[in-house]
Amino acid sequence: MTEQAPRLIDTAALERALEEFAKARDWEQFHSPKNLAMALTGEVGELVELFQWLTEAQSRDAMKDPVQAMRIQEEMADVMLYLVRMASVLGVDLNSAVKDKIESNGLKYPSTRA
Amino acid sequence: MTEQAPRLIDTAALERALEEFAKARDWEQFHSPKNLAMALTGEVGELVELFQWLTEAQSRDAMKDPVQAMRIQEEMADVMLYLVRMASVLGVDLNSAVKDKIESNGLKYPSTRA
Amino acid sequence: MTEQAPRLIDTAALERALEEFAKARDWEQFHSPKNLAMALTGEVGELVELFQWLTEAQSRDAMKDPVQAMRIQEEMADVMLYLVRMASVLGVDLNSAVKDKIESNGLKYPSTRA
Amino acid sequence: MTEQAPRLIDTAALERALEEFAKARDWEQFHSPKNLAMALTGEVGELVELFQWLTEAQSRDAMKDPVQAMRIQEEMADVMLYLVRMASVLGVDLNSAVKDKIESNGLKYPSTRA
Repeated sequence: MTEQAPRLIDTAALERALEEFAKARDWEQFHSPKNLAMALTGEVGELVELFQWLTEAQSRDAMKDPVQAMRIQEEMADVMLYLVRMASVLGVDLNSAVKDKIESNGLKYPSTRA
Repeated sequence: MTEQAPRLIDTAALERALEEFAKARDWEQFHSPKNLAMALTGEVGELVELFQWLTEAQSRDAMKDPVQAMRIQEEMADVMLYLVRMASVLGVDLNSAVKDKIESNGLKYPSTRA
Repeated sequence: MTEQAPRLIDTAALERALEEFAKARDWEQFHSPKNLAMALTGEVGELVELFQWLTEAQSRDAMKDPVQAMRIQEEMADVMLYLVRMASVLGVDLNSAVKDKIESNGLKYPSTRA
Repeated sequence: MTEQAPRLIDTAALERALEEFAKARDWEQFHSPKNLAMALTGEVGELVELFQWLTEAQSRDAMKDPVQAMRIQEEMADVMLYLVRMASVLGVDLNSAVKDKIESNGLKYPSTRA
C-alpha cells in the first residue's frame, strides 16, 4: 500500500475549470505564458491599489468594511486565476513548486525558536 | 447527510504551513496585508522578468530548458506563497473567492460555442 | 566660466508642480516612499493591461488607434507622476541616477558594433 | 516671437541616449512596447522589494543608509530608463502626457485650501 505525501495545495479542479473556460471562448490562442504573466501583473496592480493609502494597521482591518472586503476578494481571486492558469499552460506542478520553495526557505531562514 | 460542493482550490495545508513558518521566525509582525501585497509585487516582477524578452512562442516552450524551468517554478511558488499568506492573514476564503469570480466572469463573457 | 554637464533628464518643474499639488490637498501625509512605491505599482499594472493581449507587432502599432493612444498616454503619465514624486520625496536626483545607470549598463553590455 | 510653454519634464537627451544604446547593441528588435512594459514591471518589482518590510516612517528615512540609498537610486533609474524608452518607441510625448494628466487630476481632486 503506497502512502501519498500530503498536498500543501490542490489546484487540479481549478485548472480544469479554467481550461474549459478558455476553450469555450477560443481564448487558448491568447493564453501564452508571456501574456498570462502580463495579466497577472495587471491584477496584482489592482490588488495593490486597494492597500496603497492604508497604514499597515488599517490594512490588517481591511476586511471589516464589507465593500472593501468584496473588492479584496475579487482582486485576490483574479490574481489566483491567472497564476493557476499560467502554471497549467506551462505544466508547472504548483504543489511540488511550493513544497520545494518552503523547504529551501527553511534552510535559508532557520527558525529562531529554541 | 449534507453534500459538500466540490472545491476548486484547496490551500488549507499551505496556509497552516506558512503560519507556522512565520510564527517560528517571529515574522507575524511584518506580515501585514499591506507588506504582503508589496512582497507579492516583487515576486511577480521576478516572474515577469523571465518572460520579458521571449516571444510568445518561446514563452510556450519555456519549460523545455531545465534551468529556466527551475527558475519559473521557483518564482511561481514565491507568488503563490505570498498570495496564500496574504489571504490567510486577511481571512479571505480563496476557494469561495475563486468560485464567485469564475461565475461572474462566465456572465460577463458568455461562451462563444454553440 | 564653468561648463555644465548636459542633463539627460530634467524633472525639476514637475517635482515642484507635484509638491504644490500635494500640499494644496494635504496629501503629504500619504506620500511616504512606501505608499508611493505601491501607487507606482498600481499604475504600471494599468499600463501593462493595455498591452497584455496584444502581439508584439500589435504593440508597436498601438498608437495608431486614437482611443488606445489616449489611454496609453494617460497611464504612462501616471507612472511618471508617481516615479518623479517618489524621487522628490526621497531626495533622489533622477538625472544623476540615470546617468550612473547608463554608464554601468555600458560596461555591463559592451557595444557589439565595430 | 512665439513664447514656449514651460516644460514640466524634459526627456529628449535621455531618449536619444537610449536609442543609441539600443542601436549599438542591436536591441531594437527586442524593444517592442509589450516587452518594455514587462521590463518596466520587473524593475518596479525590484524597487518595491526595497520598501516592502519597512514601516512608512522607515521608508521616509531610507536614504540615510548609504548602501540602501545607492540601491534605491539604481532601481529608480532602471524604472525611468524603461519608462522613457517605452515612450520613445511608442512616440508618446511625456511632457504633454504629464501636463494633461496633472490638469485632469486638478479637476478631479480640487484643492482643499481656502
